[in-house]
Amino acid sequence: MNAPDPRFAPPAMPAALLAALTERFGARCSTALAVREQHGRDESIFDVPPPQAVVFAENEAEVAFVVQQAAAHQVPVIPFGAGSSLEGHLLAVRGGISLDVNRMNALVSLNAEDLTVTVQPGITRKQLNEAIKHEGLFFPIDPGADASLGGMAATRASGTNAVRYGTMRENVLGLRFVNARGEVVRTGSRAKKSSAGYDLTRLLVGSEGTLGVITELTLKLYPLPQAVSAAICFFPSIDAAVQTAMQVIQMGVPIARCELLDANAIRAVNLHDKLGLREAPMLLMEFHGTEGSVAEQAATVQELASEHGGEAFEWATTPEARTRLWAARHHAYFSALQTRPGCRSITTDTCVPISRLAESINVSVAEADAAGLPYFIVGHVGDGNFHLAYLLDPAKPEERETAERLSQQMVARALRLGGTCTGEHGIGLHKQGFLVDETGEEAVAMMRAVKAALDPQGLFNPGKVFATQP
Amino acid sequence: MNAPDPRFAPPAMPAALLAALTERFGARCSTALAVREQHGRDESIFDVPPPQAVVFAENEAEVAFVVQQAAAHQVPVIPFGAGSSLEGHLLAVRGGISLDVNRMNALVSLNAEDLTVTVQPGITRKQLNEAIKHEGLFFPIDPGADASLGGMAATRASGTNAVRYGTMRENVLGLRFVNARGEVVRTGSRAKKSSAGYDLTRLLVGSEGTLGVITELTLKLYPLPQAVSAAICFFPSIDAAVQTAMQVIQMGVPIARCELLDANAIRAVNLHDKLGLREAPMLLMEFHGTEGSVAEQAATVQELASEHGGEAFEWATTPEARTRLWAARHHAYFSALQTRPGCRSITTDTCVPISRLAESINVSVAEADAAGLPYFIVGHVGDGNFHLAYLLDPAKPEERETAERLSQQMVARALRLGGTCTGEHGIGLHKQGFLVDETGEEAVAMMRAVKAALDPQGLFNPGKVFATQP
Repeated sequence: MNAPDPRFAPPAMPAALLAALTERFGARCSTALAVREQHGRDESIFDVPPPQAVVFAENEAEVAFVVQQAAAHQVPVIPFGAGSSLEGHLLAVRGGISLDVNRMNALVSLNAEDLTVTVQPGITRKQLNEAIKHEGLFFPIDPGADASLGGMAATRASGTNAVRYGTMRENVLGLRFVNARGEVVRTGSRAKKSSAGYDLTRLLVGSEGTLGVITELTLKLYPLPQAVSAAICFFPSIDAAVQTAMQVIQMGVPIARCELLDANAIRAVNLHDKLGLREAPMLLMEFHGTEGSVAEQAATVQELASEHGGEAFEWATTPEARTRLWAARHHAYFSALQTRPGCRSITTDTCVPISRLAESINVSVAEADAAGLPYFIVGHVGDGNFHLAYLLDPAKPEERETAERLSQQMVARALRLGGTCTGEHGIGLHKQGFLVDETGEEAVAMMRAVKAALDPQGLFNPGKVFATQP
Repeated sequence: MNAPDPRFAPPAMPAALLAALTERFGARCSTALAVREQHGRDESIFDVPPPQAVVFAENEAEVAFVVQQAAAHQVPVIPFGAGSSLEGHLLAVRGGISLDVNRMNALVSLNAEDLTVTVQPGITRKQLNEAIKHEGLFFPIDPGADASLGGMAATRASGTNAVRYGTMRENVLGLRFVNARGEVVRTGSRAKKSSAGYDLTRLLVGSEGTLGVITELTLKLYPLPQAVSAAICFFPSIDAAVQTAMQVIQMGVPIARCELLDANAIRAVNLHDKLGLREAPMLLMEFHGTEGSVAEQAATVQELASEHGGEAFEWATTPEARTRLWAARHHAYFSALQTRPGCRSITTDTCVPISRLAESINVSVAEADAAGLPYFIVGHVGDGNFHLAYLLDPAKPEERETAERLSQQMVARALRLGGTCTGEHGIGLHKQGFLVDETGEEAVAMMRAVKAALDPQGLFNPGKVFATQP
């Protein structure tokens, strides 16, 4: 939305490096502007020049080769998956090579009897679920976008099913990755638990491409539930919907998904998906289990919803009806962008302890209403996590300023309430100041020390998570 | 059992350090032999001279003071909790100060409505559960011993409830700890999930005291289940019991606990607890949920057990009856030690993918039987984890050699089957070679690099997890 930031002016890429990459990869090493731009832009609000080259790796040895060559020439490497990150993770703020691993999308091995699968990093969540459904299994983590599993691990993604199944933190059993020396490192195993040494798996999960390039992931799987039932319910206010969600969680109902859409989000998906939903705050819920347990959960939730004025409780038990509802939920972001043509968005991602969720949302809504910026809310409210997205006219810098100010207020509030600045999107470029506010200089200094120890040249995705120097 | 190992001969403790500690702590800094020996011996098989001093800290500032003083004099610091670790974690292999945090056992804050609690590291799991039960909540991680929460985090402990509730890895939301500079570091928050930077929380969980001294933990809690039911069932063979457990897990039954005791373990607990149980392989199971869901789970499991020749299925629904059974399970280790007076034990801790558990156990049993050493088995078989403990006569070094050989064979087999050398006890002194076998030199080199970056003087619990130099 703005002119390229002059801070992002990398040195030219060494000719010897480009020659080595071209010799090995041929047409799979590209410097074409269109290819570079496609790898240098994401859903974030930043304008940064694209990477200087894009390499399409097809196997782990090729990843290692790229890293070794880049290390020899001190040129950055930015792992690239589906490009669906929201915080500027894939932007080449110091130039370098975008290392595209989308072609590494094989299912390496499926162990249905152990509920584990090993995959390459470029496989997307939909591809994975398609490949395993014949075994009656599924991988629950669903950030909305059809993200790559490598990228989901790198940002510690979660999404709609996290309330029951956890996030990528809980569902990655082990990894293979290429470290800054260009060596392949293995972590974890297929065992369900382990106390064997430092938890390098979880150090890589959420490291946003700054510690290594993930080349293989071993994941937990779950049996497809015997019964699945989805329901929607409309509320007189956002507060009433949130109070219902809070009580559902506090009563220990093992709900699988518990999503909030505000009236603005519903208006957008109605336009986009022709759903004809009531334009009022809505909870979209899903229950997994045996027939008996699903019925039990649903009865409890319906009663709680009624107590908060919930109306028009409507069930979707057929897969088609459920798919239609969840598709609408997943389209909310792009549907909303289309309500203000040409707009870009700043999306917040605070997550608070569940008892603080109503306060966290209600004040944020009041502030957004007072500011007069177009916005919408979708929330994984069962986790205490919601996204308030401001829709900005790129021609009006004052709108961005307002949105940034509101976002700062919201984060400061979430931290006061015992929460985090980012439930699932990561730090990237946008939240580096918030990270210091949240965890303190001492913790960030330890992160920097880990980075310096494992990537002394600052090769991997530089400029993300924290400034390399304090 | 042997003469002290001459490798463990630390330099004398600097008089200035001892003076500074004595000035600050008075009688809470002790060099009395009895106190030092009590802090220098655990359940492991190693004989190491005790630490040179023991400090009883009462708050975080005191912990920081000890670390700062120790750092200034380059003297090791070994955090000490309940002393129940099994792998030599608390042994002063390079001398130094045992930093006892047992007096830091306060419940700092309870947030029942968020299912979180913040505690000091010295609180034990029984103390914690006693302190929160009035709210209808519990903390499920149960390693058997009444361990301290700080120690449980440091070894990434798990135990009987992990099959349903996960391990310390999944149940620590955040930490405070004193780093090697003597600064207090905060990680995590009370939010259920976060993507804010590197996962320092999980880097500390399982670091065995080598990266910092934990001074506060924020934990997940769970509502006490509406219904709890425990059952025992006897099988014609260990294999039949294990096949049952495997099918229970593979069918996705949300069983809370699924423990195996072999005939040797039952013989020991019969002697110790006068239980009169049949001396045959037994599964001890527990189901949590609503009345309906517990009945459903139990029916499924009883049917599976019958198919494998399970007999004498017996229910314990009253708290008293359940407590009696679980006490027996928790006494198995010490009961078995008493069957061979004066013996010490080597306890294995492999964990494999569930489908490989029968192979893993059956071959290990055959090898132990062939070797003729007394042994017993208890297993968290729902997780693929079991402990085969050899009971050794300290006067017969050949018994230790045999046990070590069998243990090595068992670990090598577990690794071939996709498992780990330690499901929950940690690496400590005993399994450092196994760690390299399991994860490879590259991963261990990364662990060493992290250690060197965060504790450049090698101050915290030196000589554990891996040799500091390759």
